[in-house]
Amino acid sequence: MTEKLKDDERGTLVGPLLATGWEMVEGRDAIRKTFEFKNFVEAFGWMTQVAIWAEKLNHHPEWDNVYRTVNVVLTTHDVDGLSALDVKLAGKMNSLAE
Amino acid sequence: MTEKLKDDERGTLVGPLLATGWEMVEGRDAIRKTFEFKNFVEAFGWMTQVAIWAEKLNHHPEWDNVYRTVNVVLTTHDVDGLSALDVKLAGKMNSLAE
Repeated sequence: MTEKLKDDERGTLVGPLLATGWEMVEGRDAIRKTFEFKNFVEAFGWMTQVAIWAEKLNHHPEWDNVYRTVNVVLTTHDVDGLSALDVKLAGKMNSLAE
Repeated sequence: MTEKLKDDERGTLVGPLLATGWEMVEGRDAIRKTFEFKNFVEAFGWMTQVAIWAEKLNHHPEWDNVYRTVNVVLTTHDVDGLSALDVKLAGKMNSLAE
């Protein structure tokens, strides 16, 4: 069962993400990051890999794309805030973009 | 060479799109439409088909996705407004969503 991250988990789980370009969204318990790629094919190719993981985790991003740029927001609607699923998907997005 | 749509072309080319759920964007020479699908797999599957067409036409949408919803804005940055490419991609998006 997914639960909202507790205060101590935020330091240990969200902290490391903030060192990789993720940031807290103002006014929401959510994280965001902008991913830039070489071109549209690279950007959408990355989105496609992420999409398969998102479906597999049953946890989906809010995201927009304009050519080679993808903006992502992650939060867990079921718990009205950040959960371990957001941390997992954020880490996966980072590694797929490397 | 891509050119901005002329006034008479707007009636004949953009008019029919407005009858299929596309609308003018306020304050921009652009069109927008929200596509709703059954679930994320259907939504992203459609996006993937559109992405291949977009790359083939070398004309890319501004779009965002949250689960089964995709919001699209089309305009042609090179001509700072709507061109025949937007009309073509909008029609393709409609037919792929049918």
